[in-house]
Amino acid sequence: MSKVITPQEKDYSKWYNDIVVEADMADHSAVRGCMVIKPHGYAIWEKMQQTLDKMFKDTGHVNAYFPLFIPKSLFEAEEKNAEGFAKECAIVTHYRLKADPQNPGKLIVDPEAKLEEELIVRPTSEAIIWNTYKGWIQSYRDLPLLINQWANVVRWEMRTRLFLRTAEFLWQEGHTAHETKEEAIEESRKMLDVYANFAENWLAMPVIKGYKTPNERFAGADDTYTIEALMQDGKALQAGTSHFLGQNFAKAFDVKFANKEGKLDYVWATSWGVSTRLMGALIMSHSDNNGLVIPPKLAPTQVVIVPIYKSAEGLTLISDYVHTLKEKLQAKNISVKFDNRDSQRPGWKFAEYELKGIPVRVAIGERDLANGTIEIARRDLLTKEVIKMEDAENYISNLLEDIQSNLYKKALARTTANTFKVDSYEEFKKVLDETPGFILAHWDGTPETEEKIKNETKATIRCIPLNNPLENGICIYSGKPSIQRVLFARAY
Amino acid sequence: MSKVITPQEKDYSKWYNDIVVEADMADHSAVRGCMVIKPHGYAIWEKMQQTLDKMFKDTGHVNAYFPLFIPKSLFEAEEKNAEGFAKECAIVTHYRLKADPQNPGKLIVDPEAKLEEELIVRPTSEAIIWNTYKGWIQSYRDLPLLINQWANVVRWEMRTRLFLRTAEFLWQEGHTAHETKEEAIEESRKMLDVYANFAENWLAMPVIKGYKTPNERFAGADDTYTIEALMQDGKALQAGTSHFLGQNFAKAFDVKFANKEGKLDYVWATSWGVSTRLMGALIMSHSDNNGLVIPPKLAPTQVVIVPIYKSAEGLTLISDYVHTLKEKLQAKNISVKFDNRDSQRPGWKFAEYELKGIPVRVAIGERDLANGTIEIARRDLLTKEVIKMEDAENYISNLLEDIQSNLYKKALARTTANTFKVDSYEEFKKVLDETPGFILAHWDGTPETEEKIKNETKATIRCIPLNNPLENGICIYSGKPSIQRVLFARAY
Repeated sequence: MSKVITPQEKDYSKWYNDIVVEADMADHSAVRGCMVIKPHGYAIWEKMQQTLDKMFKDTGHVNAYFPLFIPKSLFEAEEKNAEGFAKECAIVTHYRLKADPQNPGKLIVDPEAKLEEELIVRPTSEAIIWNTYKGWIQSYRDLPLLINQWANVVRWEMRTRLFLRTAEFLWQEGHTAHETKEEAIEESRKMLDVYANFAENWLAMPVIKGYKTPNERFAGADDTYTIEALMQDGKALQAGTSHFLGQNFAKAFDVKFANKEGKLDYVWATSWGVSTRLMGALIMSHSDNNGLVIPPKLAPTQVVIVPIYKSAEGLTLISDYVHTLKEKLQAKNISVKFDNRDSQRPGWKFAEYELKGIPVRVAIGERDLANGTIEIARRDLLTKEVIKMEDAENYISNLLEDIQSNLYKKALARTTANTFKVDSYEEFKKVLDETPGFILAHWDGTPETEEKIKNETKATIRCIPLNNPLENGICIYSGKPSIQRVLFARAY
Repeated sequence: MSKVITPQEKDYSKWYNDIVVEADMADHSAVRGCMVIKPHGYAIWEKMQQTLDKMFKDTGHVNAYFPLFIPKSLFEAEEKNAEGFAKECAIVTHYRLKADPQNPGKLIVDPEAKLEEELIVRPTSEAIIWNTYKGWIQSYRDLPLLINQWANVVRWEMRTRLFLRTAEFLWQEGHTAHETKEEAIEESRKMLDVYANFAENWLAMPVIKGYKTPNERFAGADDTYTIEALMQDGKALQAGTSHFLGQNFAKAFDVKFANKEGKLDYVWATSWGVSTRLMGALIMSHSDNNGLVIPPKLAPTQVVIVPIYKSAEGLTLISDYVHTLKEKLQAKNISVKFDNRDSQRPGWKFAEYELKGIPVRVAIGERDLANGTIEIARRDLLTKEVIKMEDAENYISNLLEDIQSNLYKKALARTTANTFKVDSYEEFKKVLDETPGFILAHWDGTPETEEKIKNETKATIRCIPLNNPLENGICIYSGKPSIQRVLFARAY
């Protein structure tokens, strides 16, 4: 087998890339910065989608679909938003190719097919959606409007990394409209809770909920809430954001409603999103030098069964037992794959499923059949156990739950161990270089200080945690008074 | 209520547009030819997606995701395919906007951010996918490769109609790679069968399976299979296509594999797709002057329950019963909505759900409670019946099946009644103008005759039906000998 994963300790960044490519998660494409999401990676993304989609629907949201393109005049309507995305957007200028008269068989852009108005490939959809909402909202009876979209978006990033930062990525974006400021804030906080719940209970990834400093807000938002997670290398990853947009888009697109008293007012808005970036978060929360580790709740295949046989008769006997076991497990909603391919040896299969992160591997040989036992290996700890056949169903079911909670506990312990309270700038820089992680430190609350720290150390304020304890102190950089510690880290 | 549907007999095209917009299926957008798919429409599309996705997975396919953009040099590699789509594609030429120095607050395309190579927004993904497959396929062990993608695509159509022909649309595209020609043909036929099964048993829409004439083939295919359905106005709609691509893309992208004997050979390919066009097919198969009619198997809400009450106590009593009924129906996998909103009157709700095509409506008043009865209305026939409460669960369950099969039978009877055997060109033109429908007529087999008939009558050969009976005859246009009748119609 030629699939070799660079060890984490040797080169974390290379390790990450090896996992993505070798575990068949994604691959680079012929298009600069765009990725191909391979079947194994896409199946995990589908599990994420299904889970989140149900959570959105359970909280009253419905799905819809808005155009890929945004006419330039709409794109520039909300100035801050436009300014924030203008530098990194793909622009459609023509709508036809024609045969190249100089090069037979080649095509050139037809200069006569120039668009009157350029179209921006959506980097986010507020503009096109709020322009649409204008036609949908007249009175308070039309509110709240709770809509989500699953879509591709494009941001022309200069430095890209598979899943973490790609020119095109897949995401969902919720866009809601409300009668009051309070209701909109409540919505943005509610969706932050949905994301945190998903991160902790499905991704098995502990997160810190907080809000961004003005510097780090979404372009066009009055407030940006975020969940931040700590990766294995001590860098933070912003895993989901929820924005309170105030009346900014309503004003830019003139979306007013008649309230119960018949008075016209601008609508209040939120937007919130998570993306295929979560695939990167999954990898950098749990995987190891043997490959991917998938939390059972997001594993497209939770259990793989590998037969070990010497003869066709042996395989038949094993298969009889496996089919019964498979049915029992499936009745418990456990997804099972029986890999009875003849073209690969058991050792190859073991390595393959380890690399691909399947949570539980069952091996059954002819001798096991005689003994009434099976061998069960768990991916997270790489341990094996031989159990009695009659215990298999319950054992596996409990094991999956155990792996899920073990992964969370491990990640939580790692995050806790790598969160530091720091009281001086020297110490701050030392921690960043020697034991990188989350740093809780005092900050004077000014964008200037935030900017200087960022330029000097590459660390940013990830968030001001929600329910942050107030504590008098001194800004580590300026020495000015501070009322609370904020969360710093270097980040993806 | 201001929602008025133009009657079919008055203006079928306007009727169609009214249904799409007023039943909250889709709407025009600010982007030329692009639509917004509204929540009710999108929920039906989601049902279609779920059903088809399961069918694809049950036939061994997996999902993946490929880039939205295709570099021009890849796009032009398969010449016929490129030629077929060059005239209608959106082209990205720049990757940045900048502030317009002449107009504060406005943006212009930054001329310094011109791409070295233009990117085509995918009109179909063969080029980018086969360029990727080149890296995935080395030996027969890598085959077959059975991959599907759910995605948006863009074709710059000049005349657009909601769902039927839009610049951007949503679809799935399967792209498979095989060792042998026979296996690839078998795959393309198998997927045609999947589409036909979906059309008939979910959409309740009878279809004719056949293959296209060379003129009507997908650009780059050796053979295109199609399912064709007849709409209420006698025009045909191509509802899904499956292409046998031969070795055309393998040759264009140099995708070879080592066969079992170790010899290198080009891979054989198929591709197949259905799109949001099916939403148009659904509307024009079943809907009426009162609004949309959704086949129960694709209805996001199958049963709506409307309470009719005079007091809060009345509503409480009704609600108690409804919750029990709802649970019983949900246990049978029937989706139920209880509309107990106080803000709208029962009459308004009746009209609203009729317009939106909910298959079954249940009304319960205070008197019904006393009598132990409920009123059940079926959307397809617009009839009502009062039944005993204890029969409700079984009655509704059977009724949904009955509506599903009734819709199919009705559509089949209409299709049969509007399929004509015609033996002269005069008769052919007369049928087209007076009783439009499918026309089975003799054709001499030449593209020239096909083209002339098309230019003179706007009728095209929809397909040569599979298992078409051979029958000696005379071409209606040229008088030359013909060995079979082919299926003509004017089409969407």
